[in-house]
Amino acid sequence: SKKFVLTLSCVERAGIVHAVTTFLFERGFNIEEHQQFDDGLRETLHLRTAFSGPSVNTPDGLEEEFRSIADRFDMKFSFHDETKQRILVMVSKFGHCLNDLLFRWRGGSLQGDIALVVSNHETHRAMVEAAGVHFMYLPVTPETKSDAEQRLLELVDEHNIDLVVLARYMQVLSDDLCRSLEGRAINIHHSFLPGFKGARPYHQAYDRGVKLVGATAHYVTAELDEGPIIEQEVIRVDHSYGPTALSIVGQDAEALALSRAVRWHCEHRVLLDRTSTVVFR
Amino acid sequence: SKKFVLTLSCVERAGIVHAVTTFLFERGFNIEEHQQFDDGLRETLHLRTAFSGPSVNTPDGLEEEFRSIADRFDMKFSFHDETKQRILVMVSKFGHCLNDLLFRWRGGSLQGDIALVVSNHETHRAMVEAAGVHFMYLPVTPETKSDAEQRLLELVDEHNIDLVVLARYMQVLSDDLCRSLEGRAINIHHSFLPGFKGARPYHQAYDRGVKLVGATAHYVTAELDEGPIIEQEVIRVDHSYGPTALSIVGQDAEALALSRAVRWHCEHRVLLDRTSTVVFR
Amino acid sequence: SKKFVLTLSCVERAGIVHAVTTFLFERGFNIEEHQQFDDGLRETLHLRTAFSGPSVNTPDGLEEEFRSIADRFDMKFSFHDETKQRILVMVSKFGHCLNDLLFRWRGGSLQGDIALVVSNHETHRAMVEAAGVHFMYLPVTPETKSDAEQRLLELVDEHNIDLVVLARYMQVLSDDLCRSLEGRAINIHHSFLPGFKGARPYHQAYDRGVKLVGATAHYVTAELDEGPIIEQEVIRVDHSYGPTALSIVGQDAEALALSRAVRWHCEHRVLLDRTSTVVFR
Amino acid sequence: SKKFVLTLSCVERAGIVHAVTTFLFERGFNIEEHQQFDDGLRETLHLRTAFSGPSVNTPDGLEEEFRSIADRFDMKFSFHDETKQRILVMVSKFGHCLNDLLFRWRGGSLQGDIALVVSNHETHRAMVEAAGVHFMYLPVTPETKSDAEQRLLELVDEHNIDLVVLARYMQVLSDDLCRSLEGRAINIHHSFLPGFKGARPYHQAYDRGVKLVGATAHYVTAELDEGPIIEQEVIRVDHSYGPTALSIVGQDAEALALSRAVRWHCEHRVLLDRTSTVVFR
Repeated sequence: SKKFVLTLSCVERAGIVHAVTTFLFERGFNIEEHQQFDDGLRETLHLRTAFSGPSVNTPDGLEEEFRSIADRFDMKFSFHDETKQRILVMVSKFGHCLNDLLFRWRGGSLQGDIALVVSNHETHRAMVEAAGVHFMYLPVTPETKSDAEQRLLELVDEHNIDLVVLARYMQVLSDDLCRSLEGRAINIHHSFLPGFKGARPYHQAYDRGVKLVGATAHYVTAELDEGPIIEQEVIRVDHSYGPTALSIVGQDAEALALSRAVRWHCEHRVLLDRTSTVVFR
Repeated sequence: SKKFVLTLSCVERAGIVHAVTTFLFERGFNIEEHQQFDDGLRETLHLRTAFSGPSVNTPDGLEEEFRSIADRFDMKFSFHDETKQRILVMVSKFGHCLNDLLFRWRGGSLQGDIALVVSNHETHRAMVEAAGVHFMYLPVTPETKSDAEQRLLELVDEHNIDLVVLARYMQVLSDDLCRSLEGRAINIHHSFLPGFKGARPYHQAYDRGVKLVGATAHYVTAELDEGPIIEQEVIRVDHSYGPTALSIVGQDAEALALSRAVRWHCEHRVLLDRTSTVVFR
Repeated sequence: SKKFVLTLSCVERAGIVHAVTTFLFERGFNIEEHQQFDDGLRETLHLRTAFSGPSVNTPDGLEEEFRSIADRFDMKFSFHDETKQRILVMVSKFGHCLNDLLFRWRGGSLQGDIALVVSNHETHRAMVEAAGVHFMYLPVTPETKSDAEQRLLELVDEHNIDLVVLARYMQVLSDDLCRSLEGRAINIHHSFLPGFKGARPYHQAYDRGVKLVGATAHYVTAELDEGPIIEQEVIRVDHSYGPTALSIVGQDAEALALSRAVRWHCEHRVLLDRTSTVVFR
Repeated sequence: SKKFVLTLSCVERAGIVHAVTTFLFERGFNIEEHQQFDDGLRETLHLRTAFSGPSVNTPDGLEEEFRSIADRFDMKFSFHDETKQRILVMVSKFGHCLNDLLFRWRGGSLQGDIALVVSNHETHRAMVEAAGVHFMYLPVTPETKSDAEQRLLELVDEHNIDLVVLARYMQVLSDDLCRSLEGRAINIHHSFLPGFKGARPYHQAYDRGVKLVGATAHYVTAELDEGPIIEQEVIRVDHSYGPTALSIVGQDAEALALSRAVRWHCEHRVLLDRTSTVVFR
């Protein structure tokens, strides 16, 4: 017996759930987890079903068989088996999110495989290689940026990467790259979103006397920091936190929010809906 | 078109979801919200479906028609329409939860109707009557306790009460009363559970130097404070909070946790499973 | 024996604390609470001391005696006794913050006196008068705005108001009025700050798929929603919260943050420092 | 110029703060941070002062000079300079807290030095040695327990250890060892305290349907899990979390609470008061 996950989104109509459950029932599958969200305002149905059944099935085969139903309801859908998502992590000098991801991956709770770490600095080579992961130094200057982005896309292909994680990667991606990675790149933003725009957000937070700091994990889109939100975390602070202390606390929030977003994505629990997400935890 | 909710629990088996969705599909219902949780450890399936369709239907009629499916899978189930749950609130001297419930009810966000407030003190008569709700003084002494509990059960019947809310009601209910109200009485406990046992919990919390205080809303069971947990809330404190300050903060947590538990119960989002609950928010 | 509070702010220099404690010691006062924050980045010292001693003293008398020390260190300072701050609450149609403030005031935990409620709507007259507080209807149109603001300032004078609380008052105050009330008017903002700018913030939050909603209590300044932050609160949500559900949860956060900000202000625990605050809880 | 910290506790009496500030003022010290808490209920004053001044001073010298004041007020007190606290970490098989402490130490935000890791398992030797820290395997059986504890105390001496951190060390310490380490050993407990007693707390939490999981960092005392609480952390969960998922989330709470407790202890911000703590963050 093998485990599968089906995710789908479509315009609300009668008969969708019945069609899906009949499809699975007829093939001898047992539904183990089923979540469904009818977004009345957007008139959209989102559904995630985890089921198990005959090992002879494959995601490709199921997609083929399911296509006639999908066409009838104009569904966006996909089937997955238990093959782990392959992750490429990008990082610059701040290593707290990278350390957290590596530790969870080795402990088995990340639900994805870290296949490669790419950085525009050599700072974290030792940490990455000690974890048994390949580290690639890919420097970026204004002149080489376009080439470096091209090289990144090649690496995504060569290593069969499913998900790119920007774990405090401090280079702005070009619009083209953002579009190429749409729905398969997650960024961690060092603030709530919307939040303090521009440089030195913790200095801005300090100037306003914030009493809570937070972090936002979101899908990468061409509009900087405007992508659909997957997860947010927040920690209480007070006036005694200067910019440095705020950033230390903020890093804890970042690591927590990012690792949850990555795990949920790898378990196919996050469904994109235009500027928003549905997260079936 | 009318709206309905079906909730059910049974042992996991193949075909359950298919049977339910077929039943609804054949009667022309449209599923608007569907949540399902397969508790692999307890081998139990819990399901909540909100659907709409022909106004000619009634909860009783649907239960009748559904019974053959329910028998086949040995389901515990119930159908509800949009009739609001009728609530009896019990209170003693602390009025913060009562005030909060009354305000939410008048604002329309409680999702139930407060039909009656019963208290062993006259303290809150004015507040209750100002809100247009009937207030009944029901004093309790060791001698009259049994009679008072009998009177309470009569009130539950006379007023067609669906849910009894103990909003800081400071009398211990007898085992018999707890059993009579099983699954339809919610208590707010002034602490996390498990927590500081016995009297003066905020003094105990102060003695240990707790850094967080919380509250737990749970179903009433014969075992005091051991009932299935519906919701918990927590607020950060520090050493400067003496017992009084701890209790003020704790009251905020109590009001929040209790009102959420009541709202979710009234929307049929809470499914009891032995000592635990499934909450489909 | 009487209780007093001294708050002061000045540029950091050696000898300040020694001067203050010597002043109190020589007059037979006993320091009961002392908090001090040296803001190294802003090179500013903030201090709050609660002390008790001979009843013959008054805040005015102490200020007179303390002036030579204050001048030596160029201090901004004030003395307070236990006289309660007099509060004027302004409200429009949303009553959740008003209800919360009234309940805490009657329960004795607000630490200030609600002397008057002013509204541009009649919506909450009954609730206010039931609490025994004077309610004044002060309608505002573009034509009468200037007069209405003038009337408000007169009310502040006539009723000896110490603090104006904007408890979801939906009229934008003029720059002049903001300046007149500087440091003695608190607003609750229905979002984190910085946050979703402009109208319908909960619709914007819904569009982005936020996973946390919050509220910010801040001092009123001429720059809208840019005032120094006193307190923030946050509550977790998920994709199932539409704009209406987000606003219900947001209102809980608003009531909590605002009541804390008001209590701390009334206890002289909040010291303004340009765009920020120091809160000695 | 050198930085120092003075912490002291004593029975409340007039003149204490004046005596302390005069002592520092006369020696040319500048107070940079001063926090004080008068615990009215316990009639105890706690005070922490961070100050800077002539480099010729030492903690020992200051203690000598201060002794006459301390004797007058019957103070418990100590002076510290910026010498980092030396930490011995004990761990068994769960490595999440150890990983978190090592990462923060290398990043410079732990405020103490990890001098040695001792474990009753070889599991984490590679991780520890990769971080450049000495790892010592110290197996424990019922027969060798007494010898192992003796060896531990020797290690504490040999390595000049200031603080022992039990980072999920799964051996119960003897009463004698607890007493020897009183006030200088911190444990992380995998639950709120008070909480689920006995084995498998996450199974117990699952059985009750808890909606929040937490962790408690506390000083080690002879009474198991009854030590003074330094910090607590909590994370929201729901019914979909089985025991394994609860423990993963719980581990995040554990790592956060423990690292904060260790940092605050190392900065001399935690003052013990019988069964409770005062934490001057």
